[in-house]
Amino acid sequence: MSNLALDRNALIDASMEKIHEYLSEKKYFLARDELLKYNEADIAEMLEDISDDLGLRNTVILFRLLPKDVCVEVFSYMSSDDQVDIISEITEKETSYIVGELDFDDKIDILEELPANVVNRILEKTPKNERRKINTFLNYPENSAGSLMTPEFISLKKDWTTSEALDHIRKVGTDAETIYTCYVRDNAWKLIGIVSLSTLVLSDPDTKINDIMRTEYVCESVTTDQEKVSDDFKKYGYLAMPIVDKEHRLVGIITVDDILEVMEDEATEDIERMNGVIDLDNSDKEYLDLSVWQHARNRLPWLLILMVAYIFTGMIISRFENALSSVISLVTYMPMLMGTGGNCGSQAATLIIRGIATDEVETEDWIKVLWKEIRIGAVIGVILSAVNFIRVTVLDGESPGIALTVCTAMIMIVIFAKLIGSMIPLIVKKIRLDPALIANPAISSVSDAVALTIYFAMAAMILKI
Amino acid sequence: MSNLALDRNALIDASMEKIHEYLSEKKYFLARDELLKYNEADIAEMLEDISDDLGLRNTVILFRLLPKDVCVEVFSYMSSDDQVDIISEITEKETSYIVGELDFDDKIDILEELPANVVNRILEKTPKNERRKINTFLNYPENSAGSLMTPEFISLKKDWTTSEALDHIRKVGTDAETIYTCYVRDNAWKLIGIVSLSTLVLSDPDTKINDIMRTEYVCESVTTDQEKVSDDFKKYGYLAMPIVDKEHRLVGIITVDDILEVMEDEATEDIERMNGVIDLDNSDKEYLDLSVWQHARNRLPWLLILMVAYIFTGMIISRFENALSSVISLVTYMPMLMGTGGNCGSQAATLIIRGIATDEVETEDWIKVLWKEIRIGAVIGVILSAVNFIRVTVLDGESPGIALTVCTAMIMIVIFAKLIGSMIPLIVKKIRLDPALIANPAISSVSDAVALTIYFAMAAMILKI
Repeated sequence: MSNLALDRNALIDASMEKIHEYLSEKKYFLARDELLKYNEADIAEMLEDISDDLGLRNTVILFRLLPKDVCVEVFSYMSSDDQVDIISEITEKETSYIVGELDFDDKIDILEELPANVVNRILEKTPKNERRKINTFLNYPENSAGSLMTPEFISLKKDWTTSEALDHIRKVGTDAETIYTCYVRDNAWKLIGIVSLSTLVLSDPDTKINDIMRTEYVCESVTTDQEKVSDDFKKYGYLAMPIVDKEHRLVGIITVDDILEVMEDEATEDIERMNGVIDLDNSDKEYLDLSVWQHARNRLPWLLILMVAYIFTGMIISRFENALSSVISLVTYMPMLMGTGGNCGSQAATLIIRGIATDEVETEDWIKVLWKEIRIGAVIGVILSAVNFIRVTVLDGESPGIALTVCTAMIMIVIFAKLIGSMIPLIVKKIRLDPALIANPAISSVSDAVALTIYFAMAAMILKI
Repeated sequence: MSNLALDRNALIDASMEKIHEYLSEKKYFLARDELLKYNEADIAEMLEDISDDLGLRNTVILFRLLPKDVCVEVFSYMSSDDQVDIISEITEKETSYIVGELDFDDKIDILEELPANVVNRILEKTPKNERRKINTFLNYPENSAGSLMTPEFISLKKDWTTSEALDHIRKVGTDAETIYTCYVRDNAWKLIGIVSLSTLVLSDPDTKINDIMRTEYVCESVTTDQEKVSDDFKKYGYLAMPIVDKEHRLVGIITVDDILEVMEDEATEDIERMNGVIDLDNSDKEYLDLSVWQHARNRLPWLLILMVAYIFTGMIISRFENALSSVISLVTYMPMLMGTGGNCGSQAATLIIRGIATDEVETEDWIKVLWKEIRIGAVIGVILSAVNFIRVTVLDGESPGIALTVCTAMIMIVIFAKLIGSMIPLIVKKIRLDPALIANPAISSVSDAVALTIYFAMAAMILKI
């Protein structure tokens, strides 16, 4: 079988067809054997697809037919919704076995999702020591470093030689989340240094750990937000980050594979916020798994806030109602001017918000940003108003006065929208809020009001109405 | 010195103040010593800040005072713009030394940024073998797996024992990008298996590689897009991904630390596209480094395309001009209805586009999405129109007819906007384009036209105009 990733999806699709056939004929063992041609991450995804297409029952039957060790691995790759679904269908004994075998951080993740009575029954069967540890971990706030870390790391003593350290790793390594970064603690459990497996392997066997460990390292506190942790992973290129408590005692580590997911979740959160969706449950639930009510609740806040903003827009229009009814064709260009203003504002806001998130733009740069956006706005404004002059005069056959009104308004609206879009995120950052919270809808509605005011002011000046 | 990440920023800020002072008194060595208290990633960031605040000259002086090995490491952590700046100020000999000492993938990155004549002079001094390899790597298309990979991996033979393998790793390990994943090739350089350092260390010294290597693994082709590579990193939890050519020969590996950057860049690209900014140069340049013209060019395409869309909106309004001038207060609610439609559409589009990007939503789910958005739209529409009924009748004192027009239009507009916003990305995905390309501005302008049509149709029906 070829392992080329390119063919992989095609192979999986072909196998899935076979499996569907086997399942329809109730040939479960053949279907299981087909699954076992793939690795655990693929099997997890295939089982999830089977559950979507043919129902949970088939997935559970196949899951139970998997060899015990494979089944734990597959389980760890599944999304938490599917994990909960499977647990709801298997016996308590099976559940205890799977949860018991999971890596510590995966164990915490699934325990957080399960109903309290199931968690209690699982914990009853857990040794007291482990139970205490689990309870501590379950109490770290969501999205904190503590909630992401695992206590299964390799701890070395500073007076060991590298060969003693390697012997120790051989003995306890299989239970650790990673053996590639090892940690040196003093007697009070305080972190004093870090040594990588690569240094251990490449050093002379008699070298003391004390002489090769790095004492200049980066670590995070259990309460640090996961976004900061992921930024530091990117900055320092670590494979694992040590997590310490208030007394600087090493209590866990976070490995880079878990950070990949955090980065995706954080990007999703930013994208949603910027477009006016606020995840009120703060859950990582997928689109299709959220109920209609949850979706509505996440989307309503901004829509309602903006209703208030539109009252102002409405007031501006009311004030100019007489002018408008005397030159009704002015209404024709309202959507274009407001829309363009909104788009220009959200373009600028997007670039600045993202620039702040990736540390490219800082609040001290505001004057540079301001000057840049004014010039960008002028360039874009002039080009757009040239295009519009042709449209308004040639295509629509309107009077030069109206064309002039639309075109001068356009230039000013674009410049102001760029300024609003770029400055608001910087102001929000300055007052220490997340700039992504200032959603684009807010930027557009401010631009809307400004656009209307400029447009009507120009109309009043040029058309004398 | 405490290593707590929490204090770290404060420490760095304090050191930066000292350094500013030293530099103003031209005490360069003291400033250098202050820098050397930190690790290379931090020093790189501090030097970049110094360059922004006090000019490039100070950074170059400090950079040159760093110990040789530190200076190469620091250089590798800098952004490519700062790297090019520094190279423009140091001698050719210094440049050759630094570029020569960089890891292979960092070397390729900087060579891609430097002017051709500088690259040629560096390559002249490079051994022929290395030069040929560099030239091959420089030719991989941007954003392909080939352009990200490094050829510096550990290659083992399948008939070696683990202790032979570990000896080999000790000999060549320092030149490799990672020693944590090792690759087994046959005589034709074809990849036949993968073995992790952790397996090597935890296995009996006499075990043959052949017996412990994984033959079921995932790899990518040199031409695969970086977005796919980063998705597979997330899915399979690898620390390094093997990259093969058309003949399945192993030609390089990509390590997870480089993928963290790819993930950030891809998220930035998606966010910008969704908000109507298209990076025409396809460059990773930062906001402040792009010129006014480049910014204008990246933002103009969508604004110009939408000008065409607004011609249709204009036409719809023109057709209703008579109706509007007879009930001019209808104009007051136009921005609100169009704006709400646009926001509802882009909320739905955002969730679906992001869902597609993270594999949560697939095109086959369209009917589920449709049904969900209709219900969400109905819930939101009813709530918003209830709020508006109060505004229009009580606050604005308009007639019940106008209130009814606005409210029924609102419900229908929200539902339609949700449908448009959710279905367009799925259609775009179905025809195999990137859904993020359908920017929110496009969704809003389609919603705008639909909103106006619904509004005027309701007005005609209810107000008989």
